[in-house]
Amino acid sequence: MKLSRYLPILDWGRSYDGAALSNDMMAAVIVTIMLIPQSLAYALLAGLPPVVGLYASILPLMAYALFGTSRTLSVGPVAVVSLMTAAAAANIAESGTPEYLAAAIALAAISGLMLVTMGIFRLGFLANLLSHPVVSGFITASGIIIAASQLKHLLGISASGESLVEIVEALAANVSETNPNTLAIGLGALGFLVWVRNGLKPLLRRIGLGPTAADFATKAGPVLAIVATTAIVAGLGWDKQGVRTVGEIPVGLPPFALPDFDLGLWRELLVGALFISVIGFVESVSVAQTLAAKRRQGIDPDQELVALGASNLASSFSGGFPVTGGFSRSVVNFDAGAATPAAGAFTAVGIALASLFLTPLLYYLPLATLSATIIVAVLTLVDLKKPVELWQYSKRDFIAIMATIILTLVDGIETGVLTGVSLSLALFVFHASRPHAAIVGQVPGTEHFRNVRRHAVICAPNVMTIRVDEALTYLNSRWLEKTVLGDIASNPEVEHLVLMFSAVNGVDASGLEVLETLNRRLADAGVTMHLSEVKGPVMDRLRRTHLLKELTGEIFLSQNDAFEALAPEAGVNGYLSKPDITPESRETGR
Amino acid sequence: MKLSRYLPILDWGRSYDGAALSNDMMAAVIVTIMLIPQSLAYALLAGLPPVVGLYASILPLMAYALFGTSRTLSVGPVAVVSLMTAAAAANIAESGTPEYLAAAIALAAISGLMLVTMGIFRLGFLANLLSHPVVSGFITASGIIIAASQLKHLLGISASGESLVEIVEALAANVSETNPNTLAIGLGALGFLVWVRNGLKPLLRRIGLGPTAADFATKAGPVLAIVATTAIVAGLGWDKQGVRTVGEIPVGLPPFALPDFDLGLWRELLVGALFISVIGFVESVSVAQTLAAKRRQGIDPDQELVALGASNLASSFSGGFPVTGGFSRSVVNFDAGAATPAAGAFTAVGIALASLFLTPLLYYLPLATLSATIIVAVLTLVDLKKPVELWQYSKRDFIAIMATIILTLVDGIETGVLTGVSLSLALFVFHASRPHAAIVGQVPGTEHFRNVRRHAVICAPNVMTIRVDEALTYLNSRWLEKTVLGDIASNPEVEHLVLMFSAVNGVDASGLEVLETLNRRLADAGVTMHLSEVKGPVMDRLRRTHLLKELTGEIFLSQNDAFEALAPEAGVNGYLSKPDITPESRETGR
Repeated sequence: MKLSRYLPILDWGRSYDGAALSNDMMAAVIVTIMLIPQSLAYALLAGLPPVVGLYASILPLMAYALFGTSRTLSVGPVAVVSLMTAAAAANIAESGTPEYLAAAIALAAISGLMLVTMGIFRLGFLANLLSHPVVSGFITASGIIIAASQLKHLLGISASGESLVEIVEALAANVSETNPNTLAIGLGALGFLVWVRNGLKPLLRRIGLGPTAADFATKAGPVLAIVATTAIVAGLGWDKQGVRTVGEIPVGLPPFALPDFDLGLWRELLVGALFISVIGFVESVSVAQTLAAKRRQGIDPDQELVALGASNLASSFSGGFPVTGGFSRSVVNFDAGAATPAAGAFTAVGIALASLFLTPLLYYLPLATLSATIIVAVLTLVDLKKPVELWQYSKRDFIAIMATIILTLVDGIETGVLTGVSLSLALFVFHASRPHAAIVGQVPGTEHFRNVRRHAVICAPNVMTIRVDEALTYLNSRWLEKTVLGDIASNPEVEHLVLMFSAVNGVDASGLEVLETLNRRLADAGVTMHLSEVKGPVMDRLRRTHLLKELTGEIFLSQNDAFEALAPEAGVNGYLSKPDITPESRETGR
Repeated sequence: MKLSRYLPILDWGRSYDGAALSNDMMAAVIVTIMLIPQSLAYALLAGLPPVVGLYASILPLMAYALFGTSRTLSVGPVAVVSLMTAAAAANIAESGTPEYLAAAIALAAISGLMLVTMGIFRLGFLANLLSHPVVSGFITASGIIIAASQLKHLLGISASGESLVEIVEALAANVSETNPNTLAIGLGALGFLVWVRNGLKPLLRRIGLGPTAADFATKAGPVLAIVATTAIVAGLGWDKQGVRTVGEIPVGLPPFALPDFDLGLWRELLVGALFISVIGFVESVSVAQTLAAKRRQGIDPDQELVALGASNLASSFSGGFPVTGGFSRSVVNFDAGAATPAAGAFTAVGIALASLFLTPLLYYLPLATLSATIIVAVLTLVDLKKPVELWQYSKRDFIAIMATIILTLVDGIETGVLTGVSLSLALFVFHASRPHAAIVGQVPGTEHFRNVRRHAVICAPNVMTIRVDEALTYLNSRWLEKTVLGDIASNPEVEHLVLMFSAVNGVDASGLEVLETLNRRLADAGVTMHLSEVKGPVMDRLRRTHLLKELTGEIFLSQNDAFEALAPEAGVNGYLSKPDITPESRETGR
């Protein structure tokens, strides 16, 4: 039982059968075809030789098959993590040097160790700190940066930089050196891929292809682009006319080797690796959860940390760079019918065969084609409607997403994400320190109590009920004191104050002190203090305190009990409240 | 109107009359007598010449009288802020040097500017970040450190250090050099003061003194100790036998001068000044609020920032060190009947007269006596019962207070407070990310719904109601999805899920996404999703979203409406839940 938690393969492996095998094999073939160009392209994005992308798509998939809890997640190089790898490695050496490659491999090793450690200590919950707006923001901004960074390959010029500003400046400086042949190939591939994405599938369906076959043909689009452009370059000898190609790559399986353990290097890469780990994990877990839920399966985020850590260690040991679970590849794996993580292992075999036999064919593959596939892939990540939606729904979340987008574009993912996370936390805390409370009365004919300012409800002159809409914590303790004493001061005829605790989800020590103070102050003023609808977990705590002994009033199970006991004549001397909150918001609650 | 918000004196000054005048004068006389030894002692604690304590008790009181919103707060040197001043100034120069004095004066200036700025930007809410346990923790630890640091004057040896460890080590190293005469005076004064605090008042009452007179005599104890020990030293010539005394001090009013503006110095003092500002503000505002509430008055925390800032600037311009509102002095002022801030201005006049005419009399005043008054005063700040109480009530708050106490003792107030604040925030966020939810049913014979595991309540087989006990935010969005889908998965007969939102105090963008996802997932599983008891402010927001259009079910005003509509036959086919939470906690809610 214990062992299978850390090695989920023991679980699903036990019931593995022929049906699962054929599903997994089928999925593996499709994913392999899609993965070859993707792996090459993302290695290019990371500033590495394209073959490293293949290396990072073999052992990591095997490792995930052993340790992963998602049945359909496909790990390997992904866009955002490749971009972050490039940013971190660029601090160490220039792209193309052996030191740069060593830094990328070390990043995978450090990130792997971090992830495994976080998994062992069950720190997966820390990923909660990355809110949806922050994640959406940095993905959108990364998509823009990545697309911009790939323009240089499309134009056949050199331009480097981490932030959008730097990249655009570098492009502008060198745009006059654009190589026309490269541009022709790049734009051709780009146009073809956009058409494949948007126009091919409907066309194939119209000429009678089944939906699965049409889908498959669409997914194979990048492979077609690669074959066609490679043939053009080879046939016309454009590689001699300035079109940069993949060139000579070593044939064979990845070299098995321990990553460089250089303490100075590791220290310099630490922060970068931490971001790669956390962001890679969040991306991967979101994908895994989305897919698992579709089939009513579950995943274990803490074990996912271990699995992703193992994948990164495996990548590092085989000369690869940081990997994580990717969205598009996993969706393809899922749609192709993968039944178990074995599909990933079979994919690894496919990629291994490709590295053994296909690499010589890639000699003439133009980099512009790979860039075109990257641009088409990442532009789907850019979601500019999200900020507009957030503006309408929640200004707090809008601030978080805009800060993340802008700072990522201007100063890179690390700054953007850190700012987004800190800002989200600060806004959360600020919000918790300014809660809402409402004076409530009885909805006529029911035992239900609502805000006097939103509903016409029955009130009794001698009883005031305040519904407290927040956990009582140190962040808002002064607020409650002020609110309650203010309400009481402006209603001198009140004899009983009921604090309706239906929305009080916790009371910390500072909150408890405030309740004790309120109880004393109200007693001085001749007002009895009661509580109603105190929830189980809160009551369990309060029962250990002096408050319950000192409380001048009672604790009622329901607000209705309180109202009946304290204002039995509300039907005679009570009055209806006159709601004053706008007609629109007055409908609230229905 | 606007002007009187920034100059509250325009408000209370308008109705100032003879009765207020005589009350304020009386209070001023009593506070002046108590303040003279206190001011001298706290200057000593700050490592400054005692007369600086008098300087810091004149203009600052005038400034507070102009700007302060509390009628009874008394500002001036206080123990904790004096300790922090000593710690910050010791980083610049050695105590006793002109540079040290200049640093203390600069601290008051910087702190004054910071406080005024915070007041103008209405940042008073930031003080909320200092929870009661953190404040209690650092005050307890500071009391211990201060008492230990004063032992050197009691023993007549030299010993310096910031943390308890350093101080104790220094004391142990030099204890052999103890001066017996100094020790005799110190212990004598200490014994006398302890007796005055505990034994004198009952004695005076027994011999027939009224309570006010007895109280006054008790408060005058330190003055008596000073007079007696000064007389002993002067009479027996002990100042020639190694008893250190206050010595020559300049006669006259404080020199009016601008503080040193040395950018390098200011930069070095910045962090220290920030802590002095924030902690001084928190201490002062707590005192002001406590006293104001007793007389049903109010204070304005943001204006208090301005007032304390002005007091510190005034202190700095007159050669003084950082000041704030002190607990014991304010209570004396309050008890003595101070009616308006004018009492503070009159006290300032009293202290000014003392600096003009009394200082020569202080030549023979032994430092040991001043230390004894400090020790007696600060030991009342030490509250060792608090951690025990917190352990019983809330482990979270216990962790915060213990971390604050230990780190303050080991590494000083700044580290202690920073750790306490960060830890409190981290634990708060952690808690918010692991909320509580309960499946609820109808309490028989009522319209009230409670946890099925704590109460025997009516449930319907086809309807499940989950009460969500937390605002839905990005910190816990994954939790809700998991909880709800888990509960639904284990109850396949459920057709309707009601999310009871009575305790949902907010839904951010991440929470909204989860609700949309849940709605879709439940629809896939053939379960209709409803909401009940959505509060006004939450509903106002949700009405701007797609969720309400896409929601498969309805939004009910009350949970009872939902239950009646969805399970009309609950009386026939319903069943009673069997509570399984221990008998003790099962009483919860009553």
